[in-house]
Amino acid sequence: MSRYSIGIDFGTLSARAVVMDLSDGKVISSAVSEYTHGVITDDLPCGISLAVDWAVQIPQDYLDSLSECVRKAVKEAGVSPSDIAGIGMDVTASTMLPVDSNADPLCEDPKFSQDPNSYIKLWKHHAAQKYADLIEETARRSGSRLLDPFGGHISGEHFLPKAMQIAIESPELYDRSFRILEVGDWLVWKLTGKESRGYCAASFKTYYSEKDGDIPASFFSSISPRLENLSDKYPRNVLFPGDCAGTLTEEGAELLGLVPGIPVAAAGVDAHTTVYGCGVSRPGQFLMIIGTSTCEMLISDTESRTEGISGVVYDSIFKDTYTYECGQSGVGDMFGWFADNQVPEGYKKDAEAKGLSVQQYLTEKASSLEVGENGIVALDWLNGVRSTLMDFSLSGTVAGLTTETTPEEIYRALLESTAFGCRKIIDTLESDGVSIDTLIATGGIPHKNPLLMQIYADVMKRDVYIVERDQTGSVGSAIMAAAAASGGFSVLADLTEKYAMPFGAVYHPDKKSSEVYDQLYDIYCEMYFFFGEKNSLMHRLKDIRKNSREN
Amino acid sequence: MSRYSIGIDFGTLSARAVVMDLSDGKVISSAVSEYTHGVITDDLPCGISLAVDWAVQIPQDYLDSLSECVRKAVKEAGVSPSDIAGIGMDVTASTMLPVDSNADPLCEDPKFSQDPNSYIKLWKHHAAQKYADLIEETARRSGSRLLDPFGGHISGEHFLPKAMQIAIESPELYDRSFRILEVGDWLVWKLTGKESRGYCAASFKTYYSEKDGDIPASFFSSISPRLENLSDKYPRNVLFPGDCAGTLTEEGAELLGLVPGIPVAAAGVDAHTTVYGCGVSRPGQFLMIIGTSTCEMLISDTESRTEGISGVVYDSIFKDTYTYECGQSGVGDMFGWFADNQVPEGYKKDAEAKGLSVQQYLTEKASSLEVGENGIVALDWLNGVRSTLMDFSLSGTVAGLTTETTPEEIYRALLESTAFGCRKIIDTLESDGVSIDTLIATGGIPHKNPLLMQIYADVMKRDVYIVERDQTGSVGSAIMAAAAASGGFSVLADLTEKYAMPFGAVYHPDKKSSEVYDQLYDIYCEMYFFFGEKNSLMHRLKDIRKNSREN
Repeated sequence: MSRYSIGIDFGTLSARAVVMDLSDGKVISSAVSEYTHGVITDDLPCGISLAVDWAVQIPQDYLDSLSECVRKAVKEAGVSPSDIAGIGMDVTASTMLPVDSNADPLCEDPKFSQDPNSYIKLWKHHAAQKYADLIEETARRSGSRLLDPFGGHISGEHFLPKAMQIAIESPELYDRSFRILEVGDWLVWKLTGKESRGYCAASFKTYYSEKDGDIPASFFSSISPRLENLSDKYPRNVLFPGDCAGTLTEEGAELLGLVPGIPVAAAGVDAHTTVYGCGVSRPGQFLMIIGTSTCEMLISDTESRTEGISGVVYDSIFKDTYTYECGQSGVGDMFGWFADNQVPEGYKKDAEAKGLSVQQYLTEKASSLEVGENGIVALDWLNGVRSTLMDFSLSGTVAGLTTETTPEEIYRALLESTAFGCRKIIDTLESDGVSIDTLIATGGIPHKNPLLMQIYADVMKRDVYIVERDQTGSVGSAIMAAAAASGGFSVLADLTEKYAMPFGAVYHPDKKSSEVYDQLYDIYCEMYFFFGEKNSLMHRLKDIRKNSREN
Repeated sequence: MSRYSIGIDFGTLSARAVVMDLSDGKVISSAVSEYTHGVITDDLPCGISLAVDWAVQIPQDYLDSLSECVRKAVKEAGVSPSDIAGIGMDVTASTMLPVDSNADPLCEDPKFSQDPNSYIKLWKHHAAQKYADLIEETARRSGSRLLDPFGGHISGEHFLPKAMQIAIESPELYDRSFRILEVGDWLVWKLTGKESRGYCAASFKTYYSEKDGDIPASFFSSISPRLENLSDKYPRNVLFPGDCAGTLTEEGAELLGLVPGIPVAAAGVDAHTTVYGCGVSRPGQFLMIIGTSTCEMLISDTESRTEGISGVVYDSIFKDTYTYECGQSGVGDMFGWFADNQVPEGYKKDAEAKGLSVQQYLTEKASSLEVGENGIVALDWLNGVRSTLMDFSLSGTVAGLTTETTPEEIYRALLESTAFGCRKIIDTLESDGVSIDTLIATGGIPHKNPLLMQIYADVMKRDVYIVERDQTGSVGSAIMAAAAASGGFSVLADLTEKYAMPFGAVYHPDKKSSEVYDQLYDIYCEMYFFFGEKNSLMHRLKDIRKNSREN
């Protein structure tokens, strides 16, 4: 008799559930459910307007989508609820909200429903940046080492700045909050009736350490007396990925159309869970999840507190190894911007005539260029820089333009710039003694753009393996579910290996191209230093822009 | 009884003649004639293919166009040939050719008609750059100061490198050349039967000095023994602008449909002649001739051998003053490149729906942006840099891009970059003690783009006066003709003032905008220093491009 697990991946706009066969790891069904209200950046449903840089969501949307996609996937799979061995889920992070002691969101309390701080703050809510700056400044002033494992910087996208925003801007709401927590932890609580706190988000987004626990209250109270009890608001019971957080309650079973008693894994973070889904478990494998932005995950035996790396945490993805998380803020986003804004009419017509999208057509034309022929080097900073500069005031640059420059030459330079950005991360890690041998690519772009993947192989001078499997996030959650149903965190690496699928295409570096790219990368690095490290020019440029828009 | 003068302006693709009334300076007729073969960059009419960077023309085309446009203008004016008091002309420079002792072009000799070196080399013939480099290197090695008045550099567009190309690549043709000369001087010779050499081209393009004469033979022979007699190939009799070179011969009168005996002025250079046509005669007036590229001319009482200024010559435009010539290589060219290559379909459709060109539409949209709102600073180097870096290996840069950047924001940054480039020239001259008070704009662009002119006023913090008159080149030549018919060079300033027309629009700097532009200009200067002076990055980028195209 076959047994199955369910994995649910909560993205920015929708949730996807898969049903996985535990005998061979095959996905036998999959279903998607979009959040009713999507991402809210302008007006709340009650009519209240949001300020600039806000991005919030409605908690009930997550419950509705969870219910819908699981029911659809199970129905499509044609399996009996009694054959489900476990449930796992991952959510974007830090995507968080305040709740009362019944795990009910405070935005559903009429007293707080007019207050934007009571809603889910999505990972890309950027209105808490000033609190991130305050934490960083306090850490620097007090000589605290607490940000060392996170590249020395704190992002406004992380949990603490968002929680501080509630505490400082909405004191009454803050006092009323029994817990302030990740959406993943909240959903697991809803399904199991038990509080828990997934270690991935706890370590990477609230700087919880296995050894030292949470940041001490004294640090927070040195910022503001209001913050002294902040860590009391976190859920108790930190659990590693694949650990069982509890079993499905009657209420949870009703929501999902399943039966009570099914083990539920502790909540995961999307990019981290993708590592399991891609079959990546060996130290030295560098996983690039390439979509609108790129998240890079590395499993390593070596600990290094490298400047500008988003985080390094022990025991966070697999037992007894370190996980590094890095990121590039603008990848597919930047290519899409170029295709929409910088490509002339004739190209669009020619693409249509060939039945291609504008980006496919640009890629085709860019593929026929020799390496270096465009004479252009770009900085891939159109959305700012995550790793290794961690500076969102930076912006993009295109150098080497002439009146003979064609759109495909610039497009190719943008593709190349993301490869250079990735090489910069790899070089930085390697110079700190962290080994990287193969590159593995997944996400929305690798299958669509073979030119990009060849450029990555040539620029990074390593083989690039393409993950063949789709839905690697929800598959990863299904693998966490399998672990929760058996040995927990300690068997996760074995299960990842057991359920791994062979890679698809492999791109090998071309020696001649690599030699030219070495020269172009030197130029990239000089521009990186000038615009990013040495010069405040782009900060001033952003300030000038901001002032002129406010006038 | 009215008297008239004729001015002919030879541009890159056509000649234009005007008939001017000497009583009030009004243009009473105007006619254009295009050169039959235009600019040849691929194959000569005989089938011989040209190498990269060549740009040649057919001498007979100039004679045919001269004849046609003068006949048409005189006919349209309805004046009698006996009422023509003088003829003047100006040509692009250095646009030059080798001829025999009858002033017949050697490309018409069947012995040399297969040799590209026997044809007219147009100003933008760039295949002689290596000889320019050789002259510069020799001057540096020998400690010669001969390039000091020309910004310390020699351009491959000047006369000497082009003449050297003939001497070194086609020795037999060189030996057979009785004269190697500017097309302007050749045409005057053709009309008057007398050799002469216009001082503007002689000084700015062959470095003739009023005090010291031509570059000594010893300098040339130190480059190559073949060049020893180079200056013997120049026409005798250097004449200032407005000086009479001779009178129309029977043969000349037949060509033009006029009568013999009419005074003909010494040949002028196009940008220089435009100064007369614009009514610019006062020291401190800075004339910007803004078209595909920009040529800037300044009349000054002060001599300064400023690094990177194309030239400073005494007595070259008006008696007893200095003339500075500067240039920006990519202006209208760069805006046109952007409109053709970087503007999406939707913009083109919207422009069409409004009955606007793409550039007009971009200008309209860019006009509604606040200063600094685009957050972008560009380097206007898409065609390399004439003043003040004199480096054609440099290329353009756009910094400050985000995924929210719109086409009109980049377009505006390109407009602004040319203003910053111009301010850099002005700042450089001023820091050497040369005074500039008002800016005067003419050429194809100022009337078309009021936004650009307001930006120039704001960036340079000076009033910008727009020349209302059209055809300022041929009008300038008609003023030279008037001088040739009366007192020659010494009356040219008075005649320029007498025939000046009031300026049209005036743009005043806006204090608030200027303050923001000061900040953006600081950023421009830092990028200028990084990409242009400090760093060899763009040279390497160009070398990489060149190598990849050759492989």
